[in-house]
Amino acid sequence: MVVVMAPEATQKDVEAVVDLVRTAGGDAFVSRGVTRTIVGLVGDVEAFDALNLAQLRGVLDVVRISVPYKLVSREHHLDRSVVTVAGVPFGPDTLTVIAGPCAVETPSQTLEAARLAKAAGAALLRGGAFKPRTSPYAYQGLGERGLRILADVSAETGLPVVTEVIDPAGVELVAPYADMLQIGTRNMHNFALLQEVGAAGKPVLLKRGFGATIEEWLMAAEYIAQRGNLDIVLCERGIRTFETATRNTLDISAVPVVQRLSHLPVIVDPSHSGGRRDLVLPLTRAALAVGADGVMIDVHPDPGTALCDGNQALTRVEAAEVATAVAILSPLMGRKLAHP
Amino acid sequence: MVVVMAPEATQKDVEAVVDLVRTAGGDAFVSRGVTRTIVGLVGDVEAFDALNLAQLRGVLDVVRISVPYKLVSREHHLDRSVVTVAGVPFGPDTLTVIAGPCAVETPSQTLEAARLAKAAGAALLRGGAFKPRTSPYAYQGLGERGLRILADVSAETGLPVVTEVIDPAGVELVAPYADMLQIGTRNMHNFALLQEVGAAGKPVLLKRGFGATIEEWLMAAEYIAQRGNLDIVLCERGIRTFETATRNTLDISAVPVVQRLSHLPVIVDPSHSGGRRDLVLPLTRAALAVGADGVMIDVHPDPGTALCDGNQALTRVEAAEVATAVAILSPLMGRKLAHP
Amino acid sequence: MVVVMAPEATQKDVEAVVDLVRTAGGDAFVSRGVTRTIVGLVGDVEAFDALNLAQLRGVLDVVRISVPYKLVSREHHLDRSVVTVAGVPFGPDTLTVIAGPCAVETPSQTLEAARLAKAAGAALLRGGAFKPRTSPYAYQGLGERGLRILADVSAETGLPVVTEVIDPAGVELVAPYADMLQIGTRNMHNFALLQEVGAAGKPVLLKRGFGATIEEWLMAAEYIAQRGNLDIVLCERGIRTFETATRNTLDISAVPVVQRLSHLPVIVDPSHSGGRRDLVLPLTRAALAVGADGVMIDVHPDPGTALCDGNQALTRVEAAEVATAVAILSPLMGRKLAHP
Amino acid sequence: MVVVMAPEATQKDVEAVVDLVRTAGGDAFVSRGVTRTIVGLVGDVEAFDALNLAQLRGVLDVVRISVPYKLVSREHHLDRSVVTVAGVPFGPDTLTVIAGPCAVETPSQTLEAARLAKAAGAALLRGGAFKPRTSPYAYQGLGERGLRILADVSAETGLPVVTEVIDPAGVELVAPYADMLQIGTRNMHNFALLQEVGAAGKPVLLKRGFGATIEEWLMAAEYIAQRGNLDIVLCERGIRTFETATRNTLDISAVPVVQRLSHLPVIVDPSHSGGRRDLVLPLTRAALAVGADGVMIDVHPDPGTALCDGNQALTRVEAAEVATAVAILSPLMGRKLAHP
Repeated sequence: MVVVMAPEATQKDVEAVVDLVRTAGGDAFVSRGVTRTIVGLVGDVEAFDALNLAQLRGVLDVVRISVPYKLVSREHHLDRSVVTVAGVPFGPDTLTVIAGPCAVETPSQTLEAARLAKAAGAALLRGGAFKPRTSPYAYQGLGERGLRILADVSAETGLPVVTEVIDPAGVELVAPYADMLQIGTRNMHNFALLQEVGAAGKPVLLKRGFGATIEEWLMAAEYIAQRGNLDIVLCERGIRTFETATRNTLDISAVPVVQRLSHLPVIVDPSHSGGRRDLVLPLTRAALAVGADGVMIDVHPDPGTALCDGNQALTRVEAAEVATAVAILSPLMGRKLAHP
Repeated sequence: MVVVMAPEATQKDVEAVVDLVRTAGGDAFVSRGVTRTIVGLVGDVEAFDALNLAQLRGVLDVVRISVPYKLVSREHHLDRSVVTVAGVPFGPDTLTVIAGPCAVETPSQTLEAARLAKAAGAALLRGGAFKPRTSPYAYQGLGERGLRILADVSAETGLPVVTEVIDPAGVELVAPYADMLQIGTRNMHNFALLQEVGAAGKPVLLKRGFGATIEEWLMAAEYIAQRGNLDIVLCERGIRTFETATRNTLDISAVPVVQRLSHLPVIVDPSHSGGRRDLVLPLTRAALAVGADGVMIDVHPDPGTALCDGNQALTRVEAAEVATAVAILSPLMGRKLAHP
Repeated sequence: MVVVMAPEATQKDVEAVVDLVRTAGGDAFVSRGVTRTIVGLVGDVEAFDALNLAQLRGVLDVVRISVPYKLVSREHHLDRSVVTVAGVPFGPDTLTVIAGPCAVETPSQTLEAARLAKAAGAALLRGGAFKPRTSPYAYQGLGERGLRILADVSAETGLPVVTEVIDPAGVELVAPYADMLQIGTRNMHNFALLQEVGAAGKPVLLKRGFGATIEEWLMAAEYIAQRGNLDIVLCERGIRTFETATRNTLDISAVPVVQRLSHLPVIVDPSHSGGRRDLVLPLTRAALAVGADGVMIDVHPDPGTALCDGNQALTRVEAAEVATAVAILSPLMGRKLAHP
Repeated sequence: MVVVMAPEATQKDVEAVVDLVRTAGGDAFVSRGVTRTIVGLVGDVEAFDALNLAQLRGVLDVVRISVPYKLVSREHHLDRSVVTVAGVPFGPDTLTVIAGPCAVETPSQTLEAARLAKAAGAALLRGGAFKPRTSPYAYQGLGERGLRILADVSAETGLPVVTEVIDPAGVELVAPYADMLQIGTRNMHNFALLQEVGAAGKPVLLKRGFGATIEEWLMAAEYIAQRGNLDIVLCERGIRTFETATRNTLDISAVPVVQRLSHLPVIVDPSHSGGRRDLVLPLTRAALAVGADGVMIDVHPDPGTALCDGNQALTRVEAAEVATAVAILSPLMGRKLAHP
């Protein structure tokens, strides 16, 4: 941490900073410049945070230097982690595809979608039984009935299940049906949910909030990790910008940035980023080439009747194209395609 | 709703759209242009949404025309509403100040802050007992003990209490202590919480998500309203942009825009928008002058020791400046200052 | 400037930084922490910039502390400046209204618009003869004929002229007709134009780029100032964000932020920010109340036939409302309305 | 074009719209809904634009349906174009690498950088002699001396030259030295420069403005095309968002979106997007995999002494990695690596 003093700060102002830091058990080093004096702090950053140094007379700015997350940081955990979900790995040596329908609608739609998922190379089946929708008038999901459909389809196809939980109270209901619990973009800052999921004993897929910085995303992961659960896979799914040609702007750079900052695996959702079927294949290829540890893709046997995000769901032809891209690109990236 | 056909769409494609719309109980009118044909739809928009018209062959785009919220819309409720909180009105003829500490820390800090709130012209006391913090290592609030402090200070000062609820499961605990329940910016998309709060029988202060559009904000209000609770006050508190000089960018235009779209009252939080004490007074004046129905302001007896957002909290001198600005500007805006 | 060393940096790495800084004529102070070492630099920041310290082995980050502009900075020029345009002041004690048509179309339209401008309380007439338009198919302005119309209308009404220049080669043509040269939002980063205008011997109205930070805006002003011209008035006109309800998002906080960083006057354009007539009056009030040194407003005798931005132009009734708001708010803000 | 009438619009209001459109030579079709009436327009969109229909009584909104650019649109030019620069193709069947130093500094630095460019697989040499810099105190380039160095190095290495022009008046000077003229991100809205470059008879590399939408970028290309020059290559280089971990956010989706909207080639600049050397290789791979027609990369023999953007410049090892990635990915994408 660095304290920047204002040009008009007095010698006494600087000493007050140094004294306060030392009282809090830290140490402080003063560098006097021509127009500015800066004070470098050594010690416990959170203790310094609590000092409200920016409030002291003569202080212009307080600049944080180190990252605010610990358990998910790569700083003291240099090897990238492998997270295993019902035997399926996510990590630096594999490439893992999750696919399925945005929403579980009927048993046959889900089963057909699971077969499409397999055709796309998926090792895990995604499908929402609880849907967080911007409009209260939009389809909200089948609830527990949807979970039972997922369980049946999983048994039939052998694909483990990734499904979303949207409410702390719902974790107890959803967890037994899920091999991996998904936190959606609108819930990345739902701290009660993060903590509940952290305690549920299941791997977590944590989507980035569309308005969240990479640092905030890693802090959300830290909430989960704090409860003793480090089986977290991060999922970049586009951020909100001024561009309107796509639903969101896929922040492809976030993948290598996160891999440098955190030891957790990170995958990409090309379906929700673009919100357009024609962008799914090129964005999948980009995700694999940039070094993502996997992708998550929407498929639907009949997108024209889909109750949720039909515009972006792939059908059989496009699912096969994804499988081909994955098969070609994974060895080039030094990865093996993960199987269920 | 308008369906835009692609240049290469055939006569059959157009007829398919018209037929599908009519099957769903609506009507459709075709306008043929030189390069484009468009089809205007008449009837129930949600029924049309479910048709996934964008999926049909030859369809280029589907453009929604009407707003997706109903209960909070001004379209069929032309008069702006007055929401009353423990006798304190929010509405078109009044100007209502909420003030208090960001976080409840101790009884004496809260009592002193409440007195500062009164000095700033406040009719309601804000104070957080449960704090949603980006970092799990940051101060998380006193919990129920904080609620009891708020109750004591409210009894002593006569100021009704506005306090945040961060979790559906916590609504039952918080509601009896609160005259108004606050939904914070990170929870604007927490639909389970919105619904729980909608059913709690208390007025709600709904902050705008920092990554949310005005339309999404009104949809979040619609979630609350759907549970039968229309006692909702909206609070603009800054959105996330590329500018880094302020913590957020106060979207001052949102106030008149919302007042035109919705009958609900709308206030401004100048403290969290800017995140800087020196901006609170000018932004308060701007909020009043743009026509906001009130403001919400952070005060603290000793910002240097504040456990949360001390950099933006006002002390006695600045609180008095806010009171002066409010006293001068409210009659100019044709409003009476609301009292507890 | 502060150099942050990586956790794995060696003692030699740190010494290399210190040596390089001293070779460049500066001094460096080392603060060793538990996980990090930081080096504070004292001396000429530009000399340090040229060292590319971030390239050195073991360097994690280089954090700039001081602002990169000088002539327009308030740091060494504590009093806020007054810029005078043909006798009309912009500064801390006055409130100056610029008004006129977006584009000069005909002599009678311009004359009527100038009368509307006066009715709105304007001391200066704006009007574009050269229009930078996103589409090459949109109306591009009358050129020199428009400048002559402006001159005639100025002579008739006594209002000095503010008009835009869009091209370095055009400055010589436009300057004799202009009392103040306007740089539009799309040209804020047109450095050749900034320099040419800086040498033209006329006051400059510098609009903020809709994608530019406050710091970049002040750097653009520095380009003009470097040519010896400090008669610069800044104009906030909205930035680009994800919100689509308004054309741009007026960054009202930019006014007090800029007034703290720079001694230059700063005004607000409520017409182009919102892009909607119904927002002009409330945003004008907000601009005055936040402390802006003036406003710039579009008026048009018949917006329905306007060749440019008719949706935001005020007519007689609204112009009178602006005049009333200005008359009421300027004394409250301790300002006198500027007259031509 | 579609005109949406307000709920309170009368029959006469609707007729007024229809009459006005017909007077302007178009036709209009009315669709009456339960709460809304819409009017579909058929005819010349620009003629309709000039009618200011949004100004008419009872009109709520005017929705544009077709794209505002023509010459660069793919709508009437289905085949994607090939642009040839001194014999080097940019187009759907090739993959073209541009590389070189951000700024030309000395003959030997430029020559070494050109050799690095070749090592990276480049068919064209980039290098700036005129640098548009945010700060007037930053390095501004060597000017004509830099152009002569580029010419010498081009003669020595056989690499054609891509160099930036920052000012309409400079086009005459720069064009004879350039095989391709570059318009930088800050000048994308410099319409005078676009027109001058359009008339210069040289292919153009048009970077996207960091604050510009895809539509605005294509409109900028239309300005060039209008002067008869369709030899335009578009270059995505990152947009400005709230994320601060990277200098800009590479909008990787823009590549397939542009390829669908326009017949012009589009390449990616992974160096300026991220602003970090460690991101160049992964972003290059992503660009190739998403389907870009090429990439543009900064190289420098000694980034530690670079006068411009040294933090992102590649040296020999990383240049070779880029060459390998290009060699592997181009055949997979059905492309041949372009050679000088």
